[in-house]
Order: sequence, then C-alpha cells, then structure tokens
Amino acid sequence: MQRVDTILAGGVVLTMNETLDVFPRGAVAVKGDSIVAVGPAEEIQHEYTADELILCEGQVIMPGLINTHTHVPMTLLRGLADDLRLDVWLMGYVMPTEGQFVNPEFCRLGTLLACAEMIRSGVTTFADLYYFESDVAQATADAGMRALCAQTVLKFPSPDAPSYEDGLARTRTFIQAWKDHPLIVPAVGPHAPYTCTDDILKACADLALEFDVPLHIHIAETRLEVDDARAEFGIPVVPRVEKLGLLETKMLAAHCVHVDQGEIRSLARHSVGIAHCPTSNLKLASGIAPVVEMLKQKANVGIGTDGPASNNDLDMFEEVRLAAILAKGAALDPVVVPAKQALTMATRLGAAAVHMGAITGSLEAGKRADLITLDLRTLHNTPTFQRDPDSIYSQVVYAAKSTDVQDVMVNGKWLMRDRSLLTIDESTVMEQANALAREIDAFLIAREGNVLHKLIAIGGVQRDETFEIQVKAQVESKDIVKPLFESPHIQVVKHTHYRQYDTYFIFADEHQGRIRYREDDALTADGEVENVRTRLTFTLPTKEREFDDAVMLSRSQFIAPAARPLRFYREYFRPIEEREVQKERLRWHILYKGVLFYVNVDIMQSPFAGQLFLEIKSQTWSQRDAEYKAHLVTEILSILGLSPEKRIRKEYLEFVGTNT
Amino acid sequence: MQRVDTILAGGVVLTMNETLDVFPRGAVAVKGDSIVAVGPAEEIQHEYTADELILCEGQVIMPGLINTHTHVPMTLLRGLADDLRLDVWLMGYVMPTEGQFVNPEFCRLGTLLACAEMIRSGVTTFADLYYFESDVAQATADAGMRALCAQTVLKFPSPDAPSYEDGLARTRTFIQAWKDHPLIVPAVGPHAPYTCTDDILKACADLALEFDVPLHIHIAETRLEVDDARAEFGIPVVPRVEKLGLLETKMLAAHCVHVDQGEIRSLARHSVGIAHCPTSNLKLASGIAPVVEMLKQKANVGIGTDGPASNNDLDMFEEVRLAAILAKGAALDPVVVPAKQALTMATRLGAAAVHMGAITGSLEAGKRADLITLDLRTLHNTPTFQRDPDSIYSQVVYAAKSTDVQDVMVNGKWLMRDRSLLTIDESTVMEQANALAREIDAFLIAREGNVLHKLIAIGGVQRDETFEIQVKAQVESKDIVKPLFESPHIQVVKHTHYRQYDTYFIFADEHQGRIRYREDDALTADGEVENVRTRLTFTLPTKEREFDDAVMLSRSQFIAPAARPLRFYREYFRPIEEREVQKERLRWHILYKGVLFYVNVDIMQSPFAGQLFLEIKSQTWSQRDAEYKAHLVTEILSILGLSPEKRIRKEYLEFVGTNT
Repeated sequence: MQRVDTILAGGVVLTMNETLDVFPRGAVAVKGDSIVAVGPAEEIQHEYTADELILCEGQVIMPGLINTHTHVPMTLLRGLADDLRLDVWLMGYVMPTEGQFVNPEFCRLGTLLACAEMIRSGVTTFADLYYFESDVAQATADAGMRALCAQTVLKFPSPDAPSYEDGLARTRTFIQAWKDHPLIVPAVGPHAPYTCTDDILKACADLALEFDVPLHIHIAETRLEVDDARAEFGIPVVPRVEKLGLLETKMLAAHCVHVDQGEIRSLARHSVGIAHCPTSNLKLASGIAPVVEMLKQKANVGIGTDGPASNNDLDMFEEVRLAAILAKGAALDPVVVPAKQALTMATRLGAAAVHMGAITGSLEAGKRADLITLDLRTLHNTPTFQRDPDSIYSQVVYAAKSTDVQDVMVNGKWLMRDRSLLTIDESTVMEQANALAREIDAFLIAREGNVLHKLIAIGGVQRDETFEIQVKAQVESKDIVKPLFESPHIQVVKHTHYRQYDTYFIFADEHQGRIRYREDDALTADGEVENVRTRLTFTLPTKEREFDDAVMLSRSQFIAPAARPLRFYREYFRPIEEREVQKERLRWHILYKGVLFYVNVDIMQSPFAGQLFLEIKSQTWSQRDAEYKAHLVTEILSILGLSPEKRIRKEYLEFVGTNT
Repeated sequence: MQRVDTILAGGVVLTMNETLDVFPRGAVAVKGDSIVAVGPAEEIQHEYTADELILCEGQVIMPGLINTHTHVPMTLLRGLADDLRLDVWLMGYVMPTEGQFVNPEFCRLGTLLACAEMIRSGVTTFADLYYFESDVAQATADAGMRALCAQTVLKFPSPDAPSYEDGLARTRTFIQAWKDHPLIVPAVGPHAPYTCTDDILKACADLALEFDVPLHIHIAETRLEVDDARAEFGIPVVPRVEKLGLLETKMLAAHCVHVDQGEIRSLARHSVGIAHCPTSNLKLASGIAPVVEMLKQKANVGIGTDGPASNNDLDMFEEVRLAAILAKGAALDPVVVPAKQALTMATRLGAAAVHMGAITGSLEAGKRADLITLDLRTLHNTPTFQRDPDSIYSQVVYAAKSTDVQDVMVNGKWLMRDRSLLTIDESTVMEQANALAREIDAFLIAREGNVLHKLIAIGGVQRDETFEIQVKAQVESKDIVKPLFESPHIQVVKHTHYRQYDTYFIFADEHQGRIRYREDDALTADGEVENVRTRLTFTLPTKEREFDDAVMLSRSQFIAPAARPLRFYREYFRPIEEREVQKERLRWHILYKGVLFYVNVDIMQSPFAGQLFLEIKSQTWSQRDAEYKAHLVTEILSILGLSPEKRIRKEYLEFVGTNT
C-alpha cells in the first residue's frame, strides 16, 4: 500500500479529463501538491493509504472552477454604480474612484475579499488584469489560490504608472519577481487594442515572448470597438493584433464578443485562450459572444465573471449556467452547449485558456491537486436521476449553486473545509472592505452633492471665470441693427452667423447652478455649416447686479469643451429637468468709444419660433468697468432707438420654463 | 401603544410600493394575517408594541417574491432529461413519464418539495398549472404558501382526465371547493391555444368568468406556435384568444415570447398578467420575450421560473437577475430594466400579474403579511455602498443569492425562521422524492434498454407483424423485367415509381433490432413527385429462415407513420450509427400462378450510384405458404433468366456499413 497525504472517497468523481470519465463511487488520492491517482473508490482505497481520509458520500468531487477573466481588486467597487451606460459607469464613476483610491493596500484588500468569495464558490484558479499586480499576486499567494496575474499597460496615465513606459517597466520587474512561483503565473496585460498604440502592443508582445509568460488583454468587447478599429486601421481587432505579433504569445483574450469566423479561426489556430464573460456582456449590453462557433473550431474557450463591479459577483456557478442557456437562446437551438460542455469550459478548457492546461483543470494523476467537493443533498438538488450518465453534469450546471461547495483544495492544500475558510480571515476583510466603502461613499457624496465637483471629476474643465454685462430686448426685425453701420461712433469689426442648439440641465437645488450644453454651428455667408463646436458652461443662477435699463451683470464660472455626447452628460448629471433653446444668431463685434461689444440678433426657432431678440454683451472684470460699460450699453440702445419697455430681464431658458 | 403580533425592525425596508419607499432603518408591524404599519423603525416602535420583536440589523426586509409561472409537481422531474430539443424532451421523456407516474400522491409530494425550495429562496406566492390541482392546492395550503392553482384542461387525454369534458368538470369542482380559501386562488388552466380547440378555450373563458377566477395559459412560447396559428387561423396567438373572449377573464399568460407591439397593447389594455420566464425561454431556445416593450406599455409583467423540469430550479433570485441583464443584452442598452424595475417585476408587478395585487406584492398597511428577510452580511454582498439610494436594489438583484434568505412569513404566519423550515418536514420529502426518482429511473432504464419499448413509448405504433420472403440480385439493366410482360404465366397488374430515402438507425446491441426511417416520394409517369409519405419500420436483424437460391424469410415487426421529423427520431433514439440508402424504385405488382408478388428494380443513388438491383418479394403468413412462395420465386427468377450467382444475401444497409 502506497502512502499518500489525503484520499477523498465515496463521492461521484467528475474527472473532466479528455474522455470525461466519471466514477460514481470514486476516489482521488493526493500527495504533496499533486494528484497521485483517480478511480473507483474501492481500487484507490485498496492501493493507497492516507493520513487524511475524507468521506464524500452524497457529494461530487471535481476539479475547481477556472475563472478566466476578472479584475479582483474591483470587488471593492461591487455595486458602486449600476444600470448605467458603459462610458458613464467607467468615466463617471469607476475611473474617478480608482484614481482616488487604488493603491497597493486597495489591491491587497480587494484581492483577499475576492479570493474569499471565489474559494467559497469553488474557484481554484483565476486570471486577473489590474494595477499594482504584485500586490494582487502576493495576496493571492497568501490566500493559497492559483492565478494568472497580468500587470496592466496602457497609453493613459494609470493609478500605478504615469506613462506606458513606466507600466512596461513595472511589468518587467513584476515578471522577474514572480516567474517561478508555484501558484502565480505573472503576465503582461496590455489593457485593450483601443487603449494601446501599436508600439505599446508590440512592446507587450516582446516582453511576453522574452519571458515566455501569458499576455492578457480585452478583445472585441463591444461593437463600437470593432467599428473604430475598422475605421482607423481598415481591419477588425484580431487581424490588427495578429499583425502586431500578439497571437505568437500565450495570449488570453477576454470577451471576444464581436469576432467573425475568420477571427475565431486565427484565435483557435494560435491556441489563444478565450474568456467568455456572459453576465458582464449582457449587463453592459455588449452583446453575446459566438461561443458555439468557437467550440466548433476547437478554440480554448473558458468562462469568466469579469470584475465584480460589472457582474456583480464572482460566482462561476451562475456563469456556467448562463453560458449553457444563453448559447441555446442565441442559437435558437436547445442542444448546443450541453451541461457537459459548459462544465468543460469552466474546468479543462478554462485551464487551457489561461495556459495552465498541463497542471490543472481536471482530476488526473500528475496534475496539481486543485479540487472541490459539492454537497448534492440539498433541496434544490433533489431528486437525483441516474439513468442518463450525463445527468450529473445537468445537476451541477443547472441546479447546483455555489453555496453547495463544501471543501476546496489548491496545490494539495486545503483552503476551505466544511465551508470554513482556512487561509483568509473573512470577518476582518469584510470589515475593512466596508470601512473603505464608507470612504468611497463620502468621496462620491461630496462630489455628487455639487454639480461643479461632478464637472471637475470628469476632467477637462477650464476655470474660466468671466463676468459679463448684458441687455436683451424683443425686436421686430433684424433691421434694428442698421444704425450700427450708420452711426459715426460705432465701428463694426466682425460679423458671424451661427445656429445654436442649447440644452440646459436644471437641478433640484437651484443654488447648485446649472449646466448648458451648447452646439454652435458656424455658418458661411451661403448658410452652409462650416464648423461645429460643442461646449459645456456651468453657471450660477444669481445675477451679480442689475443696473438701470435692465442691464445685468452675470458670471459664468466654468467652461469646458464637450468631448462626449449630450447623452453622456444627461446620464451622468441626472438633471431633474432639461430645457432646450434653438436659435439662429447673427453676431456683430462692434467697437463703441473704443470698447468691444457683441451685438446679437437671435432669430428664435424654439421656443417662440420666428420671434426676434436683440442682445448686447460685453465682458468685464471690475465693478467700476461694469458700471462704465452698462452706461455705454444704454447709449448704444438709444442709437438703435430701443425704448426701455421692450427690454427683458429673463433669459431664454426662463421663457422655456414658463411657457412650454 | 397599539398591540400587534410581530414587529420586524432595524433592517432596510424595501416596501416595493408605488412610490418605491425605502426605510434605511425601518420596521414592519404585523397583526393577524396583515401588515398594520410600515415606516422608520423609531416611529413604528414608538406607536406599536409586539408579542414578538425581530431585530433585523444588517438585513433587508422586503415583500416575498412572486413566482408567476411554474408547474410545481414537476420538481420531481428535475434533471430527468436535459439539453434536448423541446419535442424530444416533452414527447420522448416528460410525457411518457407523466403518463406512468402522475397521480394525486405525485402531485402532493412534488408540491411539498417545490414549496420547501421556494420558501427557502424567498418566494411567498406562486402561480401553478398542472394536473390533480386540488392535491397541489392542498399541499400548498399545508405548506402555508399563497398560490394561484390552475387545473389543466386540454384536448388530449391527460393523467387526470380522459377527455376535455372531464378536465372541465374537474376544474369546476376544484373551483367550487377552493373558491374562498385564504391562501389558494383556484383557476382555470387551458394548457395553450395550440393544445385546445376553440370550443375548449371558450368553455374555459366562460368558466373563469362564471366564478370570477383567473385563467392561466401558455401564450406564444415558440416561433413555431405563432407560425402555426397564422397558418391555421390567419391571425397570431393573442388575437385568436381575444376573439374567443379570453382577454375578458383575469388572464395570466405565461411566456409571451413571440408577441408583437399590437398584441402587447391588447394584453396591457385588458390587464392580462404576463409571466416572463427567461431561464426556461433560453434553455429551451424559445427566444427572448420583448420585456422592455411590455414594461413601456405598462403591462403587468411578472417573472416566473417555469417548471423545474426545464430550469432546473425554482430560484427566483437567479430569475430576477437574468431578467435584468438579459433585457439589456437583447436591447443592446445597459440602462433598460434597472435593478429596481426587475425587483418590482418580481414583487408588486408579479402580484398584479397573478391578479393578487390588492393583497400582496408590497409592504403596505392593509396588505397581507407576505414578507422575507435577507441577510446582507455575507462575503458576496460585501461591500455595501449607500451613496446611491438605488444601490440596495442593485445589491439584492445583482449580488444577493436565494441562500441569503433568512426568514419567510406568509399571511402573517412564519414559514421559515433563521433558515429552518417550520411547515415542511424537509428530510422526509427529500427521501420520498429520491425514492420516486429511483422508480422513474428503473422505468426509463427498462424502456431505454429496449428500442421497441422506446418506440411504443412515443405512441402511434401499429403492431403490424408481417413476414416476407424476398430475393435480391444485381442486374445490368432494367430490361431484366421484359420477360414479365412476355411470359404467358405472368400478369402485370400495377406499376409504380418511387424515389426512396432510407435512414437506418443502428444500435450498439444488434439484437435490439434497428429502425428504418423511410421517405417515399411517389412519382408520376413524367417523373414529378405526386405524393410524399414517411414511415418508421422496426425490424429485428435476424433472418427467420433461408431457402434455396438465397430466398429469405424475414419479419418486420412494427410499422408507424413517421409524424415527426427525422431529427426527432435521431435525438430520441440516439443510435450509435446511421446509414443512408437512396434509390429510385420501379415496382411492378404481378400475379404468378395467381399469387401476388412485387418485382422491384432499384436504381441506386447512394451507395453504388448507378448500379441496379432486382428484388422479388411477397408477404406470407405461414411456414407452408412461405415454402410454396419461395419455390414460385425461384421459378420467376428462371423466367427472368437470372443465374444463382448473381443473387445477393445482403441488404442494402449492409453494403453501406461495409463500403462507405
């Protein structure tokens, strides 16, 4: 009798090996970090004796699940912001929060929280892609899990690298430090083709080849990404990275939602691992990956949860189940991706996808002892049928839950026994995570409570504090400006013609100010649009002062180019109300007594279509200057022959509010 | 201070009322079967004193979930057969098993198993549709749950009614018996428009109106159903049932996957409840229901699990999560069906869908006390953010699991406290369910082990035992038959011309016999197809006897019209091998010495394209008759001038096996 460390015996053993052997009353013998034997319990117990014998009556013994794509520290951002469009979620919430909070301690804590959740739900190996990856690796090793840890490289400044060269240098150091660790496989993580230049992608591929480590990247996650790639490079995403040599590396491509048959063929031929993330792809509305075609072409397709900020958990049981049923719904064919195949994706194929197929993903003699037991004696697993040998896969995939996981072993070491975690102090981690969530809450509440802070949080705001005097009047015709050209005191220096589309965001607390999104279409003399400009203006509603004759002094505090679509700002700022003003603006820049004024004739399109208004404006900087210019404006008004009763104190915005 | 029975206090109260009020430190006061008050804990505890005070620190207090469509006794068939096409699953496995096992005891046990699972996962009300519904109702009442119980009516004989009139009479008696029960709402259950005639549907609507009870039916579940309705009635499914008066009842329509905007409008206008069953619709590849449009049109859309034979569980937490993310993926819009709306579907809207909106579905004073508590102090619920008031919905929908349910109360009575069931003896139910599963296993194993039994199980087989003598020979030309017309002893009575496409199913155990699926295309003199017939023939491979000159006596035991497509039979019988034979057959019916023979010249298309074979056949019934006819065949062969060495003992099938 050969002596081993541990024997698990008496449960249904799902080997998930190439021939999908199942031992209905099976056993697994473990010695050191490896599996020594797998087979019928009787045989194993006849040949081996163990220090530790685990009886698994009523349980399934199977390889641990492989989570092929996630961002574990983001577990700390679970539920931070949901049901938003990708750009609002990412640029409005996740990135500002990451910018403020992501540091080595954040990554350590987030990794421990994620590992605790994954161990509880039967995951033994995962593939990560984040910042401060050496801290992720250390926390993972401390938790005893197996992981591919990819250090992010991208063209923008990130929480751990001010430039891509820094990111690349950090990655090199990281790989050198972790290269031969028994649990951690360090990897290069160019974030995505659209966030990296050709040079960055090439440098990443070179680094991966130099050290023979994997390269973990997001590929073709959204339709937009593919359309942009076609527009910019003339080819879709996979051909582009193929040209840059990435397919020569041990590549792990997350998502691959929008890839065609030819691209799948390339990925399969180069043994690229594919991480299918069905929950994330549905929740962020990215689409449904062509998994059936990938499997048909024998690609190494694994399953991933993606980060818990977009899932919102790390539950691979939910993910496997969804992968199985979603493929059927998408293909309108209920026999595709049967339970057996879905579970293979989550184990053996997943291990191949993360380039660890040789050491994990199935229960086979010689592989590392990465295994779990599942308790099937629960209500939701009752009854069990035995007629069809595939029933056991159905049960695990369609009925079992992550909470049925009883024991977890990685590399021959127990991480959980009878649902008690052995390597992580769960309550301390939860306490620290909640304390950090309070800080993030406070940060975002302060920001959210203040429209200006929200504006600053998304960057690109210029502090452009301008004071302005202005007067407005309703007029009959644009001929009102004729005297400008006739008066000897006035010199017309410039004329412009615009169409202006304004959207005002109104907030519940009016002292918060308001935001105007303006599209300015500059027109040629022929009325053709020759230039379009969009910008945001943040103003406080208060008038600083009112002079005689309805001349106002007002202040617009901040101005920013509006680089994103109106829809983004709408979803980000969530105004309680929006008001729209559309008009054609004829503008004359005039000098009166040597002072620059703008005279606008606004031909309204909405509201009050067809009505005309005259505005005279000038910028100012001091109380005294303002008073002087108010006086000049009154003089210009009398040159134009405008009587005081035609003057209006309201802004267009206010008309809209009261009239539509 | 007013005295009540129970106060739950200190948790986050999600009322799910019209204004979606949330009390972050809230309380609910319960007296008798009803909610007396809901509000901030401090206020409630100031106004009320209770016999029982439940402190819910770190928990959510919310209405129980409403499972709007299921077949609870089918929980006993969970995992019986999966990953099959609908017809194979239903007609090959589920219906034969139901035919054998469904009786009152089956329904009682299955209901208790289902109730136990639903209580554990936070469901307080469900809508059922099955047989022996009075037994379902009794077991549900015993378990203390609230349910709409619909007795099935359909045009086929069912386990509880040999005819639809019996089903209707059974339904009437059932409604009379349960009409005023505090927990059970009896209902009429016409199975589906395609399994009911117009008369049945009308009679069901009349019965529902007579007693003012709901009508529970499957509507537009598959594309095929809609196409068939259009073909047969010229209109889609909803207009058809509208014409028959069904929308005038309190209707609950399950699935509604393939309904257009106009149909949704009709359903919404008539306050028809819709049960959206996303898991079942994906798993059976039915499609994705247009939930966004339904919600836009303010239809009462609830969420359902469908029966656990097609899900494979009753977990409404999985279902709500899937409803939220699938809608986004299908609409390619991540902001549709936010968590708040998905949870509303699973509670208040669900209650409206099952026509119990007045008494359950939200926590409001005056409604019945149907509520649950959820423990959020678990790893997968950590951390929690509080900035966004909608975060709590995100957490419940995207992160929480059914196993987080702690306590369940229905109609003011506790059904579960601290995860212990109080009304169902879980271990006895599980034991009985597993014992029954062993019986079903045995039944199906016996059937599966025998091709003939499998054939009989799907019905429609005629016992058509025929003995046949036959001889076959390879020939050079179809002119071989010329002597038939020239011989004075032979009278040609009929000539036919076919194209025949045969598929043989071969099984591992050849003694099991084999099945031939034949498509016979009858051709006119011009070679046009004038009739197509498909049929199945089951034969044992043994020759009964061989006479001189290679004349065989064989027996084909069973024959059946092949009403379903070849694909059905392939997936149902799962042969280890298939062989195909295609040929053109020229057939002459001849009389030789007053005995009828068939002379076939088969022009092979596959295999051996172009080769010709001659067959002479005759039916027989006795040993003596067989000997006599074998003798006559030998005479015909010499009239045709065919030498014995041209004769062949093999069937076409056997050529294929050895040559392709």
